[in-house]
Amino acid sequence: MPRYRLLVEYDGTPYVGWQRQENGQSVQGALEQAVLSLTGETVSIRGAGRTDSGVHAMGQVAHVDLGRDWPDHKLRNALNAHLTMAGERVAVLDARQVPDSFDARFSAIRRHYLYRIISRPAPLAIEAGRAWWVPKALDAEAMHAAAQRLVGHHDFTSFRSAHCQATSPVRTLDRLDVSRAGDLIEIRATAQSFLHNQIRSFAGTLKLAGEGKWTPDDVQAVLEARDRKACGPVAPPEGLYFLQVDYRDAEAAG
Amino acid sequence: MPRYRLLVEYDGTPYVGWQRQENGQSVQGALEQAVLSLTGETVSIRGAGRTDSGVHAMGQVAHVDLGRDWPDHKLRNALNAHLTMAGERVAVLDARQVPDSFDARFSAIRRHYLYRIISRPAPLAIEAGRAWWVPKALDAEAMHAAAQRLVGHHDFTSFRSAHCQATSPVRTLDRLDVSRAGDLIEIRATAQSFLHNQIRSFAGTLKLAGEGKWTPDDVQAVLEARDRKACGPVAPPEGLYFLQVDYRDAEAAG
Repeated sequence: MPRYRLLVEYDGTPYVGWQRQENGQSVQGALEQAVLSLTGETVSIRGAGRTDSGVHAMGQVAHVDLGRDWPDHKLRNALNAHLTMAGERVAVLDARQVPDSFDARFSAIRRHYLYRIISRPAPLAIEAGRAWWVPKALDAEAMHAAAQRLVGHHDFTSFRSAHCQATSPVRTLDRLDVSRAGDLIEIRATAQSFLHNQIRSFAGTLKLAGEGKWTPDDVQAVLEARDRKACGPVAPPEGLYFLQVDYRDAEAAG
Repeated sequence: MPRYRLLVEYDGTPYVGWQRQENGQSVQGALEQAVLSLTGETVSIRGAGRTDSGVHAMGQVAHVDLGRDWPDHKLRNALNAHLTMAGERVAVLDARQVPDSFDARFSAIRRHYLYRIISRPAPLAIEAGRAWWVPKALDAEAMHAAAQRLVGHHDFTSFRSAHCQATSPVRTLDRLDVSRAGDLIEIRATAQSFLHNQIRSFAGTLKLAGEGKWTPDDVQAVLEARDRKACGPVAPPEGLYFLQVDYRDAEAAG
């Protein structure tokens, strides 16, 4: 059966998250239903990352095995037509045939996320559900300085959800950059993989650094505590975007 | 009675438009209800521009007369609290007391609008309702070249809604710039005032120039026809943003 790699964008607001669940519609379920209505096949689609309810994606990657060959652009357009008809807030940006060895989750060598904060006195109208509204003024340079204490190979127990299913809390964080453009503060995080709630825990902690409540030393102490309770409050899902997944060239090219 | 100038942001999606109407909630109505629930006063709020249903604003300006003095930030915060409680997608970015001579509509010397097009094969998930989705490839440079034929002092009958209430179709268009960043094409328009549907008519016509269907000469011929039927299809409201209103310094400063 030919395998296809899908590049997927979604507005996470109406979904219970990426993963299929009993309690509501998931992004995975929306895509699997689009395949079912297109080809009549009941498939299981695997994603590179399991985003939580309310978390968005501009570049989630998934793979699916189909019963027959499809021209790439035809598969993309047909899936989008079925997603649109069903009223889903999910779009397939790209579809391409890949070798059977490609696995959206296990072949991934790097994942990129963005966390958006809008820091201003007025609540968000246009960007509601698309960013974390923080009424207090934040010092983005202080946030960036604190973030650098988290980059590297560490035990990230302090920044991990109690529900995290990973066997090890040790990860290598390649990048955690904080920058500002007007009211918008962007946190960009890159690693091979992340723990559950890790980036939202970073965002909640860096916000306290931006308010001047925590110094870079305090943030380092949170990391070293290896204790969930040491971390700042977890930031809300609506600021988080799954941006991009990197694969080794041969596998990505298909 | 002290007069206040309000800087207003809104997501136009759920509204019948800026102006109070019988057939549904308006942005003006949402603001007037927020004042009523805050102060008990039934007021009439005047805006700088009457945006249509689905059109957004990042910088609409309005004025309102209130029965007593309010510290500026307190008025802003209180109105936002009432708007949020009512579930409105409207935020007051700034409130300040101004002289009685200030009129949000008649004191305006320049209005700035943005029209956003996303040109890509896949439908919009995250930006749905926030931009015009155009599946065809568009040449932004060709659009910009065509747009320059519209800048200046002209009879804009061709780009005016049949419902336009302005006494004259003559306007001076100061700026109509088209630029691209990835899939996003931005049209920026500036004038003292616009006719009803003028910018959406520009966007619909420039899209045809971007597809290569119309040359700059064709677009100039549309202008010179002074005939509504010569214009391209009017672009949808969800791409349009009322960005900013300029006032003479003395009046803006309050």
